[in-house]
Amino acid sequence: MALERLDAALTVELQHLKDEGRGKAPERVITGCLPPDATHGRRYTLEGYDRPFLRMNSNSYLSLSFHPTLLEAADQAGRRYGVGPGAVRFIDGTSTPHSALEQRIAGFVGCPAARIFNSAYTANCGLALTLATSRTHWIGDQLNHNSIIRAMRIAGVPGANKGIYRHNDMDDLRRCLDEVDPVMERVVVIFDGIFSMRGDHAPIDRIVELCRDYHDRFRDGVITVVDDSHGIGAYGATGRGTVEFCGAMADIVVGTFGKAFGVNGGFIAASATIVEAVRQKADTYIYTNPLGAADCAAAAGAIDICDSGEGLALLANLQRRTGQLRAGLAALGLESIPGPHPIVPLLVRDTTATRRLVERLFEHGVLAVGLTYPVVPQGDETIRFQVNAGHTADDIDFLLSHLGV
Amino acid sequence: MALERLDAALTVELQHLKDEGRGKAPERVITGCLPPDATHGRRYTLEGYDRPFLRMNSNSYLSLSFHPTLLEAADQAGRRYGVGPGAVRFIDGTSTPHSALEQRIAGFVGCPAARIFNSAYTANCGLALTLATSRTHWIGDQLNHNSIIRAMRIAGVPGANKGIYRHNDMDDLRRCLDEVDPVMERVVVIFDGIFSMRGDHAPIDRIVELCRDYHDRFRDGVITVVDDSHGIGAYGATGRGTVEFCGAMADIVVGTFGKAFGVNGGFIAASATIVEAVRQKADTYIYTNPLGAADCAAAAGAIDICDSGEGLALLANLQRRTGQLRAGLAALGLESIPGPHPIVPLLVRDTTATRRLVERLFEHGVLAVGLTYPVVPQGDETIRFQVNAGHTADDIDFLLSHLGV
Repeated sequence: MALERLDAALTVELQHLKDEGRGKAPERVITGCLPPDATHGRRYTLEGYDRPFLRMNSNSYLSLSFHPTLLEAADQAGRRYGVGPGAVRFIDGTSTPHSALEQRIAGFVGCPAARIFNSAYTANCGLALTLATSRTHWIGDQLNHNSIIRAMRIAGVPGANKGIYRHNDMDDLRRCLDEVDPVMERVVVIFDGIFSMRGDHAPIDRIVELCRDYHDRFRDGVITVVDDSHGIGAYGATGRGTVEFCGAMADIVVGTFGKAFGVNGGFIAASATIVEAVRQKADTYIYTNPLGAADCAAAAGAIDICDSGEGLALLANLQRRTGQLRAGLAALGLESIPGPHPIVPLLVRDTTATRRLVERLFEHGVLAVGLTYPVVPQGDETIRFQVNAGHTADDIDFLLSHLGV
Repeated sequence: MALERLDAALTVELQHLKDEGRGKAPERVITGCLPPDATHGRRYTLEGYDRPFLRMNSNSYLSLSFHPTLLEAADQAGRRYGVGPGAVRFIDGTSTPHSALEQRIAGFVGCPAARIFNSAYTANCGLALTLATSRTHWIGDQLNHNSIIRAMRIAGVPGANKGIYRHNDMDDLRRCLDEVDPVMERVVVIFDGIFSMRGDHAPIDRIVELCRDYHDRFRDGVITVVDDSHGIGAYGATGRGTVEFCGAMADIVVGTFGKAFGVNGGFIAASATIVEAVRQKADTYIYTNPLGAADCAAAAGAIDICDSGEGLALLANLQRRTGQLRAGLAALGLESIPGPHPIVPLLVRDTTATRRLVERLFEHGVLAVGLTYPVVPQGDETIRFQVNAGHTADDIDFLLSHLGV
């Protein structure tokens, strides 16, 4: 068929996105990298540029993506099990590295069982498909990740079965709980552990406490779910994430192997019954090939490292470098959102100034993300930095040297 | 929170699934494999069994998962770019292997451009998110894959904007086209290229011809989309898939690197404008890490093989072995659905007999999938075999020897 008319309609739509400031710039292409040395962390090369770049926009918080243990584990698993699984899980697409990773991550986050997905995105979708019924009510933080919002859609959750509370506002969460129709049998309170645009965290201890008050009002109770994609491996005294930081456990933990652990893929960890229900009901688990064995083996290797002295040392450096950046911003009189997470926002509060600073950083060889309206509210224009354990004190100083007026 | 009551409710639900015959058996775990020899293809070992198994249930149609070119490409890309991308595409999660694979697959399927996804599942979701508007009407084959059905959900397509035609029934497709509300601006006709439970194919030539009659009724026209996950690499004279077999092109091609190409991941190939719209609008592309560089490099290697003399030889053997199995079933007086695709169904038409035969095959070291009600209609109980290029004549004879009465 001729696509001219569809193409024309989409061209108009794309122009609108651009005019509104919502269009995404062309993607830059990483062509390789320069290994770290005594004073500098890893640098990256980009197609079309001859200078190396410091990535302050990677969520590989523990800098494990090039770790020889992960590379070896991936290569060996690929050779033993093949580069692809060749089938979905229930049709013999399961191999030892899949099961092993599920046991490993369940143990790491302190849940009885876990199922892995291709991403935390499809894990959230799968969880909604597992738990949603016509009498299940969902309550979420207004800043929840897109995958949670889309999860409601894919599971066909009607508007009447949803409530949204103001970001981290416990009074408003209480309002949402009060407003649940008493005919509901199950309430799911779902929230990001770390909010990716801000680096602040959900007060899980207070959320759990509040939900407890309402637990007996509903047949199946009030269930708490944390998507701790930015927390697990990177937050808390031993990298257990936001639950460790808050000293309170959520009922269900969704997470990723693609950020702190440096690989790819997601998971749901929960009770054995919930995890079995995921296996039986989550279409995004059932009808798609799982991660390759190589990714599973690499992710298990990453968890092992995270759970070792080496991991604690990486976490300690991550915390030091994060502290250095936050202190440096303060010393320059720049505004951030307080907290110890390696997502460090610089609030510029002006669109033009944000864009200009992101460009200046790029010219000096620093990659960072500028967030402008309508991605953030007008007046909240921000540059997001993400500290990684592989960054050195010199790297952070180098960044700071380009932030002064 | 206490999960006892949720667990209890889910336990009841899981028991219902089991009672209805819809529960999935525990997953078997592949622990390794034995390389092929002069007369036998690769055999697999399973946890808890000491005999090796012939897999007649893998969709790795070209048997490329253990190809040294793929293994080497994966390992080298992992070492150069890291085991994980560390970010989403638009935040510098793009590296050379991502762009290269997109160019390679677009060229292979004969489209101007392509975008890769973590799976064909999320590619279908992303396509729906890109094209759906309140004035877009969707028409699909009744046997379309779950990912297309869920794609409608995730994109919030209302029931009034959907039509379903009886499987491969062009008169019924015409009825669906006739019934589209004239206020609609865009019609998308979407169908599997190969239907995974049957091995038959969509008559793309006739679908395209029919849609042409309606193209000028709607502002953006009638757009055809084929999800050719089981076709690309495995079907048609040079492995271009169902479009090649039918001699007619669809406007948009969705596919996977996880079946014939033996790796993982999916893609959308189309006009440059549609693909740019996917990049700007498809949440399942935007908000999730892409495939690792290793998977991309392996997939590009697989396409190169498929596009070579070696690939044609693999395809020829795939066709010979498929022909052998189909002829063997006929000689045994067994019923199948005719066609040249390596999905070869054996229609048993009885639940108990299907289960018994699947068990007998398992005892003799053959893995195959039994499909019983309600997965297929009552009376259509089937065992699905999937032929791979790595199967030998002896392998197929071995399977056939256990199918006679």
